[in-house]
Parts: sequence; structure tokens; C-alpha cells
Amino acid sequence: MPRNDTAGFADTDGPGASPPGPAGPGRGNVLDRGVRLLRAFRPGEEALRLTELSRRTGLPKATVHRLAEQLVGLGLLQRAPVGFGLGIGLFELGELVPVKLRLREAALPFLQDLYEATHETIHLAVRDGLDVVYADRIRGHTGIDTPARVGGRLPLTCTGVGKVLLAWSGQELIDEVLAQPLPRLTAHSVTDPGRLADELARIRRCGVGYDRQEAAPGLSCVASPVLVHGRIVAALSISVPAHQAPPARLAPAVRTASLALSRVLSRAGPRR
Amino acid sequence: MPRNDTAGFADTDGPGASPPGPAGPGRGNVLDRGVRLLRAFRPGEEALRLTELSRRTGLPKATVHRLAEQLVGLGLLQRAPVGFGLGIGLFELGELVPVKLRLREAALPFLQDLYEATHETIHLAVRDGLDVVYADRIRGHTGIDTPARVGGRLPLTCTGVGKVLLAWSGQELIDEVLAQPLPRLTAHSVTDPGRLADELARIRRCGVGYDRQEAAPGLSCVASPVLVHGRIVAALSISVPAHQAPPARLAPAVRTASLALSRVLSRAGPRR
Repeated sequence: MPRNDTAGFADTDGPGASPPGPAGPGRGNVLDRGVRLLRAFRPGEEALRLTELSRRTGLPKATVHRLAEQLVGLGLLQRAPVGFGLGIGLFELGELVPVKLRLREAALPFLQDLYEATHETIHLAVRDGLDVVYADRIRGHTGIDTPARVGGRLPLTCTGVGKVLLAWSGQELIDEVLAQPLPRLTAHSVTDPGRLADELARIRRCGVGYDRQEAAPGLSCVASPVLVHGRIVAALSISVPAHQAPPARLAPAVRTASLALSRVLSRAGPRR
Repeated sequence: MPRNDTAGFADTDGPGASPPGPAGPGRGNVLDRGVRLLRAFRPGEEALRLTELSRRTGLPKATVHRLAEQLVGLGLLQRAPVGFGLGIGLFELGELVPVKLRLREAALPFLQDLYEATHETIHLAVRDGLDVVYADRIRGHTGIDTPARVGGRLPLTCTGVGKVLLAWSGQELIDEVLAQPLPRLTAHSVTDPGRLADELARIRRCGVGYDRQEAAPGLSCVASPVLVHGRIVAALSISVPAHQAPPARLAPAVRTASLALSRVLSRAGPRR
């Protein structure tokens, strides 16, 4: 199982950004350096100059230039008016990853139902190590903006989907999380291990979990697990402004959608 | 501008899959081989055995094994019960590509409106070379299934979004397309250059384009351009079963959404 040693946001450093490949020649070879160059980009950045790429990667400018030209040839970077940007070939490759393709295809109609019923912001998330990774996000004109970007990460313990994913991931992982300092994204993030343990037990009993401004100020959410033959594969959530009616009123909606999606996925046979 | 020399489906071979990087040592180095390994996967494949990876890439098994282990270390592959599958780190990287991040964020509320108003399947697409690449797709329980996968490609001339993208891409590109044999995905695909030229002129006049079972039997669609300061950046479409009422009845809906999205994107200032 992949583990992530980053406790907080890790937008530009994926789970395997730094550790050397077990059989490869460490960080040194051209594949490692190429991936490091791609990971230098942050969300929303259209292009970076060679100087900035060199600074972020710690690679000499001449190396960055040679690598970037090769990545352009491979379709993973593209030339920008100034410098280089990520290329459409990288987007195409990313869309082939099964987490996205399979789960999203099955989940999308249920996410649409939730959006249509509530007009709030809807998330679909999976666990990777000690993080939540957002697989999909639906938002209309009026739904609240959230720190959850598709493909982005947040700590498991600071989000509704994360606590739900953790609650069903087995005692071993829960013990591992509780043994470490709990990350704090806001003043409301749960950082007391005893309180978190109680909350995880309550989530397993009720089938829903809450985030009460624990990931971002002003933002609450209610989340529910997607289970395939008893194994958790994802979580759904509805996010609302914290000053509105409490998200508990939306618990039956998210629970209904997660039960329906769980049923559809279980019918398709055990995954793996 | 990147060009794609594949006339038909090109799911596993992106625009730059084969050509050697201009400055790199051709197909030979470990970065090229690593990308070739990632591109060996096809949509929906959870895992591939070493033997199959070796067959598809033309690389010796020992090389594939060493590369795969390194890609696991980088988070771009993951070990499967048998063989290797694409890793979540690749999904994360792909989501950083601006085509996805910026356009999709702005477009999503308008796609949601179209879905809610029609309950049909909605697409957002961009042009890459002579192909359409699908940036997003919304589908409920009842919407028709389409050959358009997010991150997948279809020829410009066989789809509603593609013809719309082509119609506004300038006479130079139109001439280039018309000078080549036109791809045929179904018996209805337009393969006569004169007929296609007339249709592109009509699309520019009307602001909407149609696909009448030209990409897949039984599937029709109506599409409209997203223009930022007169420059085309994307196209929206609504897909319906061909046996239903003609998609013309949905032309005002898709036109309305594309005009609204164009306005929002133009207000945000010239992109690049």
C-alpha cells in the first residue's frame, strides 16, 4: 500500500516524488529528473521560465533546457510564449489511471443527482496513504468554493471524506494515524487523538462523517462511505457554507447516494 | 502548435508518443522508455503483466522490470496483484495541466446547467492538432453513452465539437484538413471535402454544428463554440440518441451555454 509521509498539503510532491526507485540509480537518472521537472508546476500555473524551473528542481539551467525539449517531444510539456507549460499528453495519460476512469464513470450519475437535489458542491474522494485525493468535484454557479481540487490532496483527519475513509480503513491504519501529531489546517481541525478516535467510532455507527470548518474556515461538509463488499473504495460529500443550516440536514441525501453507488459497484463484482 | 498525425482513434499514442525529442538522444533514453511504458496502458486496464508490457513496448522484460520498479518509486505506476497498473501520482500530475484545471473550473457550472435543463450527455472539448480531446463529460443515469472518454481523442471532422473547433480555427487549418483523406468512423462520416467545406461555412454562420451519427451509429449531437476575444478555445455539445427528436431542438440551449461561458472567460481577460 502506498504511504505518504506528507502531513499537510502536498500539491506538487506526489507520494513518490522524492524516494529513489528501488532498482533505479536514485534521483539521478533522466527519468527521475524528467518527473521532477513535471512536478515543479503548481496548480493553475500556465507556464514557467527556465530560471524558475531550474530553481524549483535544483537542476542546472542547461539540464532543464535539454529535459524540457525532450518532454516537449514526448507531448508532456509544451512551449509557452515564455518558458514551458504542462502538455496535453500529460492530461491524456492521467485520465487513463483507473481510479479516475472506473470509479468516476460509475459515480458521476449519483454525483449529478446530489447536485441537482441540493445545488451544493459535491466531492468524490479516495484515500492514498494518509491523504485524501479528490477524484471528482461538481460545482454549480452558487455552490461554495472549497480547497479540494480534483487531483489535489488534503490530510485524512481534516476533512469529512477523509475521516470517513479512515473510519473504514481498519484499526491498523487508525492506530498509525493516532500515534502521530494530527495536522491542523484551521483552529477547528481535530488534533486530540482521543476525540478523533471517538469521532471515528461514531462515524462507523452512523454511516456519515462531518467536517466542521476543519479544512477551511467557513466551510462545513457531510460525507458518507462507498463500500464494495464491505471494503471502502471512496467517499462522497456535500459541502456547504458553515453559517448556513448545519450539514446534518443533508446527511440523508449523501447517505442515499453513497448506498446507491455502493450497490451498483458491488453488483459489478469484486474490484480486484 | 502541436500536430497529430493520427487520423483516427489514438487512445494510447498521444501526439508526441513516437517522435524523438529534438535535443534528446531519440527514443533510446530512460525517459523515453519510461513514457513509452506508461503509454502502453489502454483505457480501463487495471494492470498489465511484464510479458504484455514487454510485448507492447518492444522492450526486453528485464528493462521493463527495472523501469517499472523505478516508476513505482516515482508514484507513476503501482504494483498490482499481477503485474503493474498506472499509479495515482500520474492522475495527480495530469490534473495539473491547465487545459483541465482552468477551462474545466470555469465551464463546469455551465455544463451543469445544460445537464439539469436537458438530462442528456454533455461534453466539453478542445482541439489538439487534427483531433478533438475531451476535457470533460457529464452524464446522468439516462444520458446516452458516447465514444468520447475524458482525455480521449476523436478526429475533428467526425464530431460536432470537432467541426465547430475546426470552423473557427482559420482557413489555413481548414485547407490542411480538406487536402487530406477525411477519416470515416461510420457510414455517415462526412468524407467529401466540398460537403465539409460547405458545412463549416454554415457552422460559422449559425453558431452551431451537428454530428448526425458521424462518430458512432445511433448517436447525434449539437455543438457550439466557446470564443475568447474572437479566438476559439473550446466547444460544448449535447449528445442524444439519433432516433429521438433531432438535436436541432437543443441548439438554443447549447448556444446559450456557450455564449455565457465565452462571456465569463473573456471577462477574465485575454488568456495568454
